[in-house]
Amino acid sequence: MAVQQTTVNPDLAVERQNATFNAEELTYFLYNGPEWTKRKRYLQNLAIQGVAKLKLKQYATLSREEQYESGLQKGAYAITMVKKLGLKSPAERMLFTEAVNPHEATGFNLHNSMFTDTINRLASDEQKEKWLPLVQSFRMVGTYAQTELGHGTFLRGLETTATYDPQTKEFILNSPTISSIKYWPGGLGKTANCCVVMAQLISNGQNHGMQSFMVQIRDYDTHEPLPGVTVGDIGNKFGYAGIDNGFLRLNNVRIPRENMLMRYAKASVLENGTFVHPKSDRLVYGTMTMVRSAIVHDAGRGLAKAATIAVRYSAVRKQSEIQPGAGEVKVLDFQTQQQKVLPQVAAAYALMFTGRNVLAFYMQVTSQIEKGALEELPQLHALSAGLKAVSSWDATNGIEACRLACGGHGYSQASGIPKIYVDVCPSCTYEGENTVMTLQTARYLIKCYNQLRQGEQLPSLIRFLQSPLEGRSSLDNQLELQELLAAFEHRARRMVHEVGQKLQTAAEEGKKSHEAWNSNSVELSAAAVAFAQAYIVKVFTDTVSRMEGKVKAVMTSLCQLYALDGIIRYLGDFMKDGYISSEQAVLLQSQLLTLLAELRPNAVALVDAFDFPDAVLDSALGRWDGNVYEALYDYSLRSKLNEKQVLDAYHKYQRPFMESQWKNCPQAAVTSRL
Amino acid sequence: MAVQQTTVNPDLAVERQNATFNAEELTYFLYNGPEWTKRKRYLQNLAIQGVAKLKLKQYATLSREEQYESGLQKGAYAITMVKKLGLKSPAERMLFTEAVNPHEATGFNLHNSMFTDTINRLASDEQKEKWLPLVQSFRMVGTYAQTELGHGTFLRGLETTATYDPQTKEFILNSPTISSIKYWPGGLGKTANCCVVMAQLISNGQNHGMQSFMVQIRDYDTHEPLPGVTVGDIGNKFGYAGIDNGFLRLNNVRIPRENMLMRYAKASVLENGTFVHPKSDRLVYGTMTMVRSAIVHDAGRGLAKAATIAVRYSAVRKQSEIQPGAGEVKVLDFQTQQQKVLPQVAAAYALMFTGRNVLAFYMQVTSQIEKGALEELPQLHALSAGLKAVSSWDATNGIEACRLACGGHGYSQASGIPKIYVDVCPSCTYEGENTVMTLQTARYLIKCYNQLRQGEQLPSLIRFLQSPLEGRSSLDNQLELQELLAAFEHRARRMVHEVGQKLQTAAEEGKKSHEAWNSNSVELSAAAVAFAQAYIVKVFTDTVSRMEGKVKAVMTSLCQLYALDGIIRYLGDFMKDGYISSEQAVLLQSQLLTLLAELRPNAVALVDAFDFPDAVLDSALGRWDGNVYEALYDYSLRSKLNEKQVLDAYHKYQRPFMESQWKNCPQAAVTSRL
Repeated sequence: MAVQQTTVNPDLAVERQNATFNAEELTYFLYNGPEWTKRKRYLQNLAIQGVAKLKLKQYATLSREEQYESGLQKGAYAITMVKKLGLKSPAERMLFTEAVNPHEATGFNLHNSMFTDTINRLASDEQKEKWLPLVQSFRMVGTYAQTELGHGTFLRGLETTATYDPQTKEFILNSPTISSIKYWPGGLGKTANCCVVMAQLISNGQNHGMQSFMVQIRDYDTHEPLPGVTVGDIGNKFGYAGIDNGFLRLNNVRIPRENMLMRYAKASVLENGTFVHPKSDRLVYGTMTMVRSAIVHDAGRGLAKAATIAVRYSAVRKQSEIQPGAGEVKVLDFQTQQQKVLPQVAAAYALMFTGRNVLAFYMQVTSQIEKGALEELPQLHALSAGLKAVSSWDATNGIEACRLACGGHGYSQASGIPKIYVDVCPSCTYEGENTVMTLQTARYLIKCYNQLRQGEQLPSLIRFLQSPLEGRSSLDNQLELQELLAAFEHRARRMVHEVGQKLQTAAEEGKKSHEAWNSNSVELSAAAVAFAQAYIVKVFTDTVSRMEGKVKAVMTSLCQLYALDGIIRYLGDFMKDGYISSEQAVLLQSQLLTLLAELRPNAVALVDAFDFPDAVLDSALGRWDGNVYEALYDYSLRSKLNEKQVLDAYHKYQRPFMESQWKNCPQAAVTSRL
Repeated sequence: MAVQQTTVNPDLAVERQNATFNAEELTYFLYNGPEWTKRKRYLQNLAIQGVAKLKLKQYATLSREEQYESGLQKGAYAITMVKKLGLKSPAERMLFTEAVNPHEATGFNLHNSMFTDTINRLASDEQKEKWLPLVQSFRMVGTYAQTELGHGTFLRGLETTATYDPQTKEFILNSPTISSIKYWPGGLGKTANCCVVMAQLISNGQNHGMQSFMVQIRDYDTHEPLPGVTVGDIGNKFGYAGIDNGFLRLNNVRIPRENMLMRYAKASVLENGTFVHPKSDRLVYGTMTMVRSAIVHDAGRGLAKAATIAVRYSAVRKQSEIQPGAGEVKVLDFQTQQQKVLPQVAAAYALMFTGRNVLAFYMQVTSQIEKGALEELPQLHALSAGLKAVSSWDATNGIEACRLACGGHGYSQASGIPKIYVDVCPSCTYEGENTVMTLQTARYLIKCYNQLRQGEQLPSLIRFLQSPLEGRSSLDNQLELQELLAAFEHRARRMVHEVGQKLQTAAEEGKKSHEAWNSNSVELSAAAVAFAQAYIVKVFTDTVSRMEGKVKAVMTSLCQLYALDGIIRYLGDFMKDGYISSEQAVLLQSQLLTLLAELRPNAVALVDAFDFPDAVLDSALGRWDGNVYEALYDYSLRSKLNEKQVLDAYHKYQRPFMESQWKNCPQAAVTSRL
């Protein structure tokens, strides 16, 4: 357990005593052993102590402007320290940064990620040599501007133009319409002085498609917008208050020809304006799959935080009696509460394991690509797209379920869950809208289905499609992990075959393939979800098989819970073809309830094992010491509305209104005491 | 359609032309005919024009403090006007107030509702005579303080004490612990100067249970807190920024004996401190059921707004191609998008119809009660509790689904949906936490199940429990409404019988009833949900049967969609006992997709019929004229961060950080232009 010494609420202490396993062992499993766990805690503590010295107000008590300001301050601190400590691994940087500003995006977020990555990926060596020192030294502070007011996922639809002027050897950038205004890029509004702009390249009157351009938007010294540039913050959002998502309108902004990013489009616009087509951009998929794989893990981590908060609070919150007259009990003792929170704990582990797995797959494919082998890239692409969708949806729903499981107090920002929710839920939309993602996965699955019909062998990832469709589940009260996995694979197989058959029939009937695709897309999307869920169950069962002892025992139950919860939620899918019988359905429902009771004593230990420091949870309800009411009260005292006993708003609006009402009430005028 | 003249986006105009029915006719149906529709529009326009004259900034662009202030200003305006116009009916007041501050709670919210209601309900005639003039003239501004930091649903658990002092004939109010601090009451923090406090009555050393006390907390003239009173705002929440939910800590606050609310507890504390038990509080259920019934309608209305925004936006937003190369299409043309938004339109109608139905049931029961007939009260109580839970859950999930269906822009406060979401989602928790509600409904269902076993006749509401359990669905591609309803009633019946049998078995095995209840509570809760859903389907089908012509045709399809969507979502429930066969399941899934295509051309007309003025939607995406990008851009320009080109935060944190980074980079220092 993390080093946190306080007087622990006895209701929470007793939960820890009653656990059947050592949470610390599970922590070691999660964080690659004791050594790395120690390092993790060292970095987190360093960050937390460092931030404490900045003496900032609690994030939830700040105004939006202050949250933006605090984001710059903390972001700058994190970047400085990451450099100073020489943290190279993404995991170390993430842990340190998360502990500085947990779920608090900052104006610098895109600089060190998309902006720098894009330069590394798309700039020529000369360009890198010129720009990277300026980027690393923050002379250039940048972001990446792709999305427009009217255009998102569909790249070819973007309207911003970069027209080559062979006279001056410049590109002229324009936002020709309202819908072409760049909109949403993080840090664009107020923080960045440069950005990479995606625009339609027009040369000699011909449109050559999307290219990337480095554009300076603000003066390096005065930070004022440059001529032709209209830039600003897009206003309040559901969350992301700390970051200045921005808009950018370009009016005849000229940039030198050398500012087109040229690694793959080398000399693609000759000085006279002739366009040379770039090489395959298949490698571009690499970064996208990496980002999507990371989302899977982040979604799991976000859900793990919300689940930690909900479980700990459920162990200290007392509400209503089970036995009339015997006094109120912990809400965690109610079966309905167990059903709300324990599946979320299971899902958090499932997604974190899967995120790690798919990142490893990414590393493997990347190293193959470097050797020129691109075979596994389509698999990785299909898998990461589907997992990105399922994990972000499940985490979003799960975090909100955890918030609602905290009752009224879950609605206070003091609970910490709203902050996590609004930070995680956009991952359903960014880096590929989820439904678009599932349909990309489905595209791959249908390709495999067609290969199978041609008698071809499928890649291992997808080989379960080859098994017979007629099977019946052998699931019984043993809940063998292999049988649970078999159920998920069967369901995915049936759904892919069913919709594949429909597309086949449509084709045979002479229907246009794009129309057939659209009119089957609900089922295609569902099949992709089923595929991704089967993969998650597979990763969870594989992971549990590598565990030992008491940890293995409890994690086996948790894995069973995860799978059973999925089967019950999608029961129709499993019963539709008789794969799971009515008798089995009844049995599985009752086994699910048995598992809840079985896991109940380990609930707190299971979330303790995530090992989040209090500062990362930033929650009055999820505190390690369980002293929730003191923390809530303390939070309230810091409300800005409490800075004065009687607010100006009282004198300005309330009092005059009251007087206007009571002036005709003789009784009121003379009453000064109840 | 409402009177709103602008240049309408042609993509939206064509949708309206293509509808197969007249939206205005459906509006008349929703709002009780043309006369009342006219009145509704008159009041809404009056409110909107009145607010426009106040020249307030857009709510989403304000800070929390400003939102509170704007709440006072608008709240005062609405109250003044409602009085001036002499609006008596709750519907008229709601429509006017909603148009003034849509989904923007204000500090006065509780004064005119819970505070006044409680006095009307629990105060004696003398007390009313004394207090009501002060309340109506706003000399007293009040709220209702029940919830404590550590105590919510379970009333007996409240810790605040009111100890009678026979010497002075006063009650002494105390918050003896941190967890006893009153927490959450709306308006308590800064606005109210009085509140009704629920507290344990202690007299002569004996605890006589919960009573209500009128307590003055702030000076009528200075508005400063009175001695012994610690009061303030609880801080930022997920939403509800306009209202000062507050905390209240009482330290030996003395109030006269006459301040105990005495209607049902008349002279219940004699001057010498003797306690006389009050009469039955069964009537108290009345108000609770009324509030819960109103939540059903409000949930539907909130969902209707989100659905209006999502559908209209889906008809103007273009994204990706269906036919490659043929250009981007409206997202509403994608089957997956239809599946996201159309079931929400259906659910909005279902909940609004049901809300109206259960309010009528409430009126009927109330008039019976006045004649001394209490027989139907338990039915109303069980029904309203279950419907409250299902409607608030479905609206909460549905609103968020609508937000996600708007892609990235749904995340901007400009979309209007976050404001609706955070205003509606607390209804899952307040006025009875949803799971507690479903278990109350289940309690009633099990009572009926046991009566049935005893051979007793059941009340009509619940008579479907008596039908045989062995049936098989006759559903076919005709999707007869009665067959759809039969499916929902069968499912509810099976689930009640199944869990009833389990409780029976447990009793026969000698298990303690409270333990058996808890260990079956997940299934009990699910059975109650099934019961409420069957009721909603019944109301929807009944309502459609009263319609005519083309409106009836499209609403029949919508009702079918609502029911089918529910069957597919809970397919396992319907298949578990073979009631719906595999063949039927396949058919129903495909019928669902057919319905989506069939309803697609009427999507916009169906939401137009809700007849929400733009000001009530307060959404850049849901505008009647469809000019969404202009509105989004306009919203952005008003961001507080745009008040200055270069913010103080830049000089304070960003610039010093940048300089610290580039000071060691010779290249950076000399570069002043990209």
